[in-house]
Amino acid sequence: MVSLIRELGASTPEMLEVFGDEMLVRAALDFERELARAQAAEGLLSEAEAAAIAAACEQLPDVAALAEAAAHAGTLAIPLVAELRLRLADDPAAAAKVHMGATSQDVADTALMLQARRGLALIRRDGERLVKALAQLADTHAATPMLGRTLLQPARPITFGLKLVAWMSGVEAALKRLVGEAETAVALQFGGAAGALDSLGGRAFAVAERLGAALDLPVPAAPWHARREGVAGLAGALAILVGALGKMAFDIALLSQAEVGEVFEPRVAGRGGSSAMAHKRNPTGCQVARSAALRAPHLAAAILSALPQEHERGLGGWQAEGPVLTELFCIAHGALAAMAAAAEGLEIHPERMAENLAAAKVGDDIGEAPALVARALAATRSRA
Amino acid sequence: MVSLIRELGASTPEMLEVFGDEMLVRAALDFERELARAQAAEGLLSEAEAAAIAAACEQLPDVAALAEAAAHAGTLAIPLVAELRLRLADDPAAAAKVHMGATSQDVADTALMLQARRGLALIRRDGERLVKALAQLADTHAATPMLGRTLLQPARPITFGLKLVAWMSGVEAALKRLVGEAETAVALQFGGAAGALDSLGGRAFAVAERLGAALDLPVPAAPWHARREGVAGLAGALAILVGALGKMAFDIALLSQAEVGEVFEPRVAGRGGSSAMAHKRNPTGCQVARSAALRAPHLAAAILSALPQEHERGLGGWQAEGPVLTELFCIAHGALAAMAAAAEGLEIHPERMAENLAAAKVGDDIGEAPALVARALAATRSRA
Amino acid sequence: MVSLIRELGASTPEMLEVFGDEMLVRAALDFERELARAQAAEGLLSEAEAAAIAAACEQLPDVAALAEAAAHAGTLAIPLVAELRLRLADDPAAAAKVHMGATSQDVADTALMLQARRGLALIRRDGERLVKALAQLADTHAATPMLGRTLLQPARPITFGLKLVAWMSGVEAALKRLVGEAETAVALQFGGAAGALDSLGGRAFAVAERLGAALDLPVPAAPWHARREGVAGLAGALAILVGALGKMAFDIALLSQAEVGEVFEPRVAGRGGSSAMAHKRNPTGCQVARSAALRAPHLAAAILSALPQEHERGLGGWQAEGPVLTELFCIAHGALAAMAAAAEGLEIHPERMAENLAAAKVGDDIGEAPALVARALAATRSRA
Amino acid sequence: MVSLIRELGASTPEMLEVFGDEMLVRAALDFERELARAQAAEGLLSEAEAAAIAAACEQLPDVAALAEAAAHAGTLAIPLVAELRLRLADDPAAAAKVHMGATSQDVADTALMLQARRGLALIRRDGERLVKALAQLADTHAATPMLGRTLLQPARPITFGLKLVAWMSGVEAALKRLVGEAETAVALQFGGAAGALDSLGGRAFAVAERLGAALDLPVPAAPWHARREGVAGLAGALAILVGALGKMAFDIALLSQAEVGEVFEPRVAGRGGSSAMAHKRNPTGCQVARSAALRAPHLAAAILSALPQEHERGLGGWQAEGPVLTELFCIAHGALAAMAAAAEGLEIHPERMAENLAAAKVGDDIGEAPALVARALAATRSRA
Repeated sequence: MVSLIRELGASTPEMLEVFGDEMLVRAALDFERELARAQAAEGLLSEAEAAAIAAACEQLPDVAALAEAAAHAGTLAIPLVAELRLRLADDPAAAAKVHMGATSQDVADTALMLQARRGLALIRRDGERLVKALAQLADTHAATPMLGRTLLQPARPITFGLKLVAWMSGVEAALKRLVGEAETAVALQFGGAAGALDSLGGRAFAVAERLGAALDLPVPAAPWHARREGVAGLAGALAILVGALGKMAFDIALLSQAEVGEVFEPRVAGRGGSSAMAHKRNPTGCQVARSAALRAPHLAAAILSALPQEHERGLGGWQAEGPVLTELFCIAHGALAAMAAAAEGLEIHPERMAENLAAAKVGDDIGEAPALVARALAATRSRA
Repeated sequence: MVSLIRELGASTPEMLEVFGDEMLVRAALDFERELARAQAAEGLLSEAEAAAIAAACEQLPDVAALAEAAAHAGTLAIPLVAELRLRLADDPAAAAKVHMGATSQDVADTALMLQARRGLALIRRDGERLVKALAQLADTHAATPMLGRTLLQPARPITFGLKLVAWMSGVEAALKRLVGEAETAVALQFGGAAGALDSLGGRAFAVAERLGAALDLPVPAAPWHARREGVAGLAGALAILVGALGKMAFDIALLSQAEVGEVFEPRVAGRGGSSAMAHKRNPTGCQVARSAALRAPHLAAAILSALPQEHERGLGGWQAEGPVLTELFCIAHGALAAMAAAAEGLEIHPERMAENLAAAKVGDDIGEAPALVARALAATRSRA
Repeated sequence: MVSLIRELGASTPEMLEVFGDEMLVRAALDFERELARAQAAEGLLSEAEAAAIAAACEQLPDVAALAEAAAHAGTLAIPLVAELRLRLADDPAAAAKVHMGATSQDVADTALMLQARRGLALIRRDGERLVKALAQLADTHAATPMLGRTLLQPARPITFGLKLVAWMSGVEAALKRLVGEAETAVALQFGGAAGALDSLGGRAFAVAERLGAALDLPVPAAPWHARREGVAGLAGALAILVGALGKMAFDIALLSQAEVGEVFEPRVAGRGGSSAMAHKRNPTGCQVARSAALRAPHLAAAILSALPQEHERGLGGWQAEGPVLTELFCIAHGALAAMAAAAEGLEIHPERMAENLAAAKVGDDIGEAPALVARALAATRSRA
Repeated sequence: MVSLIRELGASTPEMLEVFGDEMLVRAALDFERELARAQAAEGLLSEAEAAAIAAACEQLPDVAALAEAAAHAGTLAIPLVAELRLRLADDPAAAAKVHMGATSQDVADTALMLQARRGLALIRRDGERLVKALAQLADTHAATPMLGRTLLQPARPITFGLKLVAWMSGVEAALKRLVGEAETAVALQFGGAAGALDSLGGRAFAVAERLGAALDLPVPAAPWHARREGVAGLAGALAILVGALGKMAFDIALLSQAEVGEVFEPRVAGRGGSSAMAHKRNPTGCQVARSAALRAPHLAAAILSALPQEHERGLGGWQAEGPVLTELFCIAHGALAAMAAAAEGLEIHPERMAENLAAAKVGDDIGEAPALVARALAATRSRA
């Protein structure tokens, strides 16, 4: 790992684990094991061979050695398959059938998608927490007057509830998009050497269907080796979610300025201090989310830039996706966890809101704000 | 206009017109006219006043003067409303009610969405042309053998149809995403000064609904002044489409290399030449699409970067979206039109495919490629 | 960009003119004229032919027709050279020698660099204005106490002069980098068809040297058709300048918040208003600069993404640079002009600074701030 | 990045070590140790206290625990300083003076720059290897004819030496820029809480000068807490280097296509194979460099996006730089090491060059190519 210190400051232990090497290798082993079983079910190898391969897939290899070997070979599958064959040295028939009909990218893409699925579950879990917390606050503050601000200048009165539903709707819409993208993107990859499924005597697509069922992944009409819109859709949706979180985070940070003083992240012992100033109460959760919001667009764009992958498997474009998508999931969850915690313990000062509003001399007409809040909350409830 | 020469080389006259100033101002005038009519229907002004305002919205103002004034003011709405009031100088009651209850961003966002809707129609039209052309070719070449290439090296046989359905499915999936994003993003903006709909005596949301109906735009639960995930979703979807086109374009360009010679853009008189070399046949359409594919991720990322907009209307983030989304639509249509023309007239050399495949000595087993093509075509047909 | 309204809101009339079509075509004609003269001096054509070609280069062709023809051909040089030959129809010997030994990219790159040189002159002019204005203010306010703010929270006292030299040094360092990059990047392009200077009987490099001298452009050791680090260096330097301006702009906007009230953009009649709120005083110059700061990184990155251009002239990468560099120059000058005007008329409220500092209860020790200001100003003076 | 497998495939063990946690923490401890010594020399603490602090800085703390504590606190310095104070529990006077007058960012920025300096040394070392190898090849192949290719189509003859000097000059210019940027960017950060050096009784700048000397880092005129052009300049220069490497890599990959067959990466046992195809010889080094070239522009752009940091220390922008710059150094060295190895063992087939040139029927005039090669090599030698 390059830097756990830098990584952990921007993500969460849970998401770092999901995209860590152990999960990656386990997912790759899951692919090889279920491939063998699916091929046995299609009569391409014996049940005994499949069982031997499955047994060889149990134990996690030494990850550091594997990393070095993969870097040398140019792909993880080569040393991983070599390791499995070594483990099956006394069963040469089974050894020869490890990874049969598959190619490196089949393993790598499928493993990445298995990691993505776990990552998405964490994001859904904390996204729902966040939306729920914001909805409750919005309900409470539907009619709490505060100063509306445009271009960072006083505009007209709004209510805090109206601001809260803007945060909530933004996050909710982003989660919905992400779930929709995942439905198509998180899919099995199985196409063999060049995508023509040419090595399994006409049983390859049937194997794919069994493999997909075993891994609980949908099987697309054709391999997607060089057709990466699904990955790009995921990346874009993650970046939009981070942007929605960044909006909320920056609003909170602006409202926490000493001169404004309307809203603060919850006080947490040992968090948000300064190594130089004892009085400091830094909006550390907002910092995490805003930092993520600065980085995420560029990570998503890197994956967009990699879309035009050459012929049946790209040179460089494909290989860029794994580390970039990893980073995107990690910082997205860091931002989300920070904002969920912020929403659940948000410190709100309606009296300061009232003071700042009065000082701005823009009247006190909150217009249809409470009705808009109610409408937005009803829309959220109807979707839940 | 900065440079028509540079713009037209990357886009199409049609899309440049959609995002040109005339369309922009007309869309803004449509907003003001229909706003007055909606307000009349809600009893907020008289039918005569609404008619006077509508009449004032007929004639296009001088665009160059308007541009200068808008740059000075910081927003288009200010000089445009001033111009309308000037036109209504002899009807002060009507003049006072122009733009009533609306804010600059209401006009600007709604006008941008009206332009986006027209732009999307052009993209759907040519996207369908492209998918249809690719589907026909894929059907014809479902079993035409060619060399599959991975990491730019010979891999195993595939069929040209398999490559064609990869292009087709990529474009089709991207179009589907774009249409889905448009369904939520292309919406009315109407929130007034700070989004609380505070200026129309409780009739503002009713006005919004009438205005949305008149402009044929859905009305979201609450204004989206600082909640920009819809715009970002559009931008991401456009960039993914461009990426799918860029993949097709670069594959064609690689197949057109003299040493490969399998597929070429159609010959068009006067296109693809060189100012220095008479023999040149440059893949100009591919150049347009690939250039777009280099730029589009960054344009989409700019809109993602602008997501965290402050409070009720951002400073700078919002204002960045208009020019960037414009550019993205323009180059997306340039790329799409180029690829539609390429697909409709694609020059295919199955004999060179066969020669290159034979030379690669990777056998001739096309595996399940024809079945995969059939499956992909069936999936396309079932969606149509 | 296809919309003067959108373009002018983000740039300046001067820079839009520099990168407009007329300047582009005139620069291309300058190239062709001086090429003929240089070739005459090397004995490759007669003085009379060079004079005829130079005469044919005088009149600006119809730009709209040229744009259409260039888009069809895939390059500007083809229709431009055709137009020149048409003008020389009654001097076929001269007509045949137009553009001799040159290729489209030679014209396009050289013309872009001629435009860049003019653009850089505007940026240097206004950059110096800005640095000078900030230096004067810093000198005045070297010891004016204000609250230092970190992570948007009160930290410790600083002086306003310290903030001003941070702005100043940032802009100054960025200008210095830009000038340095321009020294190598703004160069002649002349390599002929594939860069080997193969068409002028061994006189091609000599022609290049004469051509460079005539256009006042340095001549690099070899053509840079597919070696684009210079362009990327320019783009990066422009984006860093915009970032430094964006930092200043956002600081001003934060200090202009009603609750802070320490610093404001100058009041300019008709600027910064709102179409909905008469009381509004929006930081419109800051908006322009911040919007530019959101977009510029992505424009620079687009040019970075285009760096790996294939073989002797890239497909798509090269063609992406012109419009993107244009946009970058345009928004950089928009941001710079806005900040120069802001600095020259900056409205400063030392009493509010004192109040906010006192309210923060962080003491009043300004430490070595005045000495740091003096040191920074001395460093600036020593460079001037 | 959380995955050694993914990281190592894109970087080198050496660079991963430089940006690893151990180096980061050691650099932070170097800062604290030398700070105490500098303060002792200025009479701000006793020599004995400085020695005690220095001794406390010897042993590396538990990195995983530190990472967790830093993530909670929001900054590394807080738990690191706490750990040092704990170690000095029986010397409370010394304990109280750890980190005196410094702030978290002083440690973090200086540590990052110490890592950057080591990283730059690796890049210079391998950059020189690469330039030297390319220069030797260019000298050998100055007159080796090959087909020049523009827009991926046959153009005119060039020589392989001309292509080699294009690669060489691109890399060389990029290294020169990087070294120049490092000269200003790689500097001490020392400003204290808000940059006013307010805590050391007028001795703070003197301490800074001693600290800079001890760490061998230049001391800028004023702290650069929120003035980040230096970091951005480094990032841009790294991305340009990666782009130059990506150009070379993609040219090699294109020339390695079976149908072209002119140039190949060196054969290395166990590298470039396929898990599905025994015949495969993938250009794995090119893949690494091209993948880096896809990612680097976006990483640089992330740092450009972070430039407008608020007030005296930004919220989120600053914190984004560490992980992003880390990633950029890591992939830049991965690309550079891959291309240095490729150049040193490049497999060249002049006979295929001749065949492809002849087949293109574009004549055999190599023009002034050998002279251009000689000129470029002379320019390189004169700089060395």
